[in-house]
Amino acid sequence: MTDSTTIEFTDSFLKMFYSGKRVLVTGGLGFLGSSLANRLSTLGADIVILDSLNPLYGGNQFNLDPTLREKMRVVIGDVRDKKQVKELIESSDIIYHFAAQVSYIDSGNMPFEDLEVNQAATLYILESCRRLNTKAKVLFASSRLVLGETQRPEIREDHPTNPLSIYAVHKLAAEKYHYIYHRNYGIATTVLRITNPYGPRQQIKHSKYSLVGWFIRLAMQDKEITVFGDGRQIRNYIYIDDIVDAFVRCGATSATNGQLYLLGSCESTEFRTMVELVVEMVGQGSIRYVPWPKDYERAETGDVLIDTSKLRNTISWEPRITLKEGISRTCQYYSTHWEMYVDV
Amino acid sequence: MTDSTTIEFTDSFLKMFYSGKRVLVTGGLGFLGSSLANRLSTLGADIVILDSLNPLYGGNQFNLDPTLREKMRVVIGDVRDKKQVKELIESSDIIYHFAAQVSYIDSGNMPFEDLEVNQAATLYILESCRRLNTKAKVLFASSRLVLGETQRPEIREDHPTNPLSIYAVHKLAAEKYHYIYHRNYGIATTVLRITNPYGPRQQIKHSKYSLVGWFIRLAMQDKEITVFGDGRQIRNYIYIDDIVDAFVRCGATSATNGQLYLLGSCESTEFRTMVELVVEMVGQGSIRYVPWPKDYERAETGDVLIDTSKLRNTISWEPRITLKEGISRTCQYYSTHWEMYVDV
Repeated sequence: MTDSTTIEFTDSFLKMFYSGKRVLVTGGLGFLGSSLANRLSTLGADIVILDSLNPLYGGNQFNLDPTLREKMRVVIGDVRDKKQVKELIESSDIIYHFAAQVSYIDSGNMPFEDLEVNQAATLYILESCRRLNTKAKVLFASSRLVLGETQRPEIREDHPTNPLSIYAVHKLAAEKYHYIYHRNYGIATTVLRITNPYGPRQQIKHSKYSLVGWFIRLAMQDKEITVFGDGRQIRNYIYIDDIVDAFVRCGATSATNGQLYLLGSCESTEFRTMVELVVEMVGQGSIRYVPWPKDYERAETGDVLIDTSKLRNTISWEPRITLKEGISRTCQYYSTHWEMYVDV
Repeated sequence: MTDSTTIEFTDSFLKMFYSGKRVLVTGGLGFLGSSLANRLSTLGADIVILDSLNPLYGGNQFNLDPTLREKMRVVIGDVRDKKQVKELIESSDIIYHFAAQVSYIDSGNMPFEDLEVNQAATLYILESCRRLNTKAKVLFASSRLVLGETQRPEIREDHPTNPLSIYAVHKLAAEKYHYIYHRNYGIATTVLRITNPYGPRQQIKHSKYSLVGWFIRLAMQDKEITVFGDGRQIRNYIYIDDIVDAFVRCGATSATNGQLYLLGSCESTEFRTMVELVVEMVGQGSIRYVPWPKDYERAETGDVLIDTSKLRNTISWEPRITLKEGISRTCQYYSTHWEMYVDV
């Protein structure tokens, strides 16, 4: 790996870097994992996917690009299966660890499962690197939910972390592991703390993951979208291709080793604006504003304005897809492949 | 429980409050747990102790005051034993959760055991309260090691938390659980983040817990005490009776519900001064200064000057035992009961 100051992350550089690299993507049939696997496969990486296809989570066999799928090895297995994980870690150059229980709402009702999947399995992956493969690079997808209530509008990496859900506690602990395994054992770890991701391949069977995807579904079904409160809270929705681009670059440079970055769009959007865009782009559906239900209010975190300068300065990255364009592409994807994402 | 603004925490108030209260102390044969159990028993509490007596940890049957012991119920069992824990939680008014793997050094070599004992068991205790006993009060002993490297001399509760050990990650996650179970489920939780505790009943079989206790042992054996670096780092050593006093008060007021407090002495002491006091009070032993070994340097956290005003303002507490007095009492205790703490 090279220091990023000398790198222009052109496609030809990335092809050279990833060509023949053995890349493990845990959760590789999910939204983020499959999108990354598809991209890395086109760059020549030798992809192995580990995914449990747990029906509660977001994995979907259809997420892999059919033209690339036969070049990938897909292992259907649980990230908690130590023997399986150990074998895969041993034979990997780069590990993208995305396997997760991804609903903060569910985490309150299954706190021990969340602990095992989101935290203990992460510890096992890092411990396996320490014992068996200290040269591997490990990239981890964390969440802006580790922050809890935001204390100021602009959020940088040093913002206080006061999780409001069990999910966020475990993501935070997993982040800390990456720092320690880098500092104490020299493992090349990188954490990206993602805020409000959306785009094709996200699961839209229920509303627990991404409201953007869920609202697109509702609008496509010409249903009513319910907005809690006045919808004035600021969010930084980021399109999947921009997320993938950030991970691909971070994996290809040692400048990101031991570091944690915020990853969001640089577009501040009111929640209600996102909803209005969805209805506009889909051309169907309607919006209704209601007061916050008591249970949900507890999880509302305040405005989020992510300052991504640390990431941008390190990997010369910036988000390229506007929310309008991203919603349009997402609608198009789901309307072409509706039956693969919604039980019909 | 009463709001603390109206409380003077006199012995008669505390006796009235604790009399007949069913108090569970996990880790109750350890340093902190036994000291608290002894004190609460004299205040009339109905004490149940759960302790594994795991030989790697600090539990010692001798720690319980023989004149109080027969009034307490001692359960030898593991805090990971869910059935056992559930039964004890159901029948408790107040839970002091002190059971822990207590060495940050060992945590790196047994990260999964540390995860189970220090974090997962804590989650189980809180989840049991949520399911079975929402009226219980839970007090948790955390550690200043959650802070990691200190960023400024004065440390308040909002200091950033960047753990340098697996132990500290799990203590941090456990702290966060307490906040969430209070916020989301109304459990009366209180976290005390302890810095550099010392005093009688601490395990002195090896150097992994408290250097004060270990150095007292070395001096009593007329051995040489090795100090890494120049020993100029600032610490806030706090004597066990002052810690117990803080926990006893915090348990007796609802003003501490949902809160986290730093707990340290208000005496800033250079590490080398502590060592010199030990040699002086014991009247034996010697000191040798050597450079930091590479492994240890990674865990050095910088100066620590704990600002305890949040705690003091809430429970009208202040530490009363100076380091000199505390070391003197500790020496006296171990010289009377030497064979109970050192394999002879």
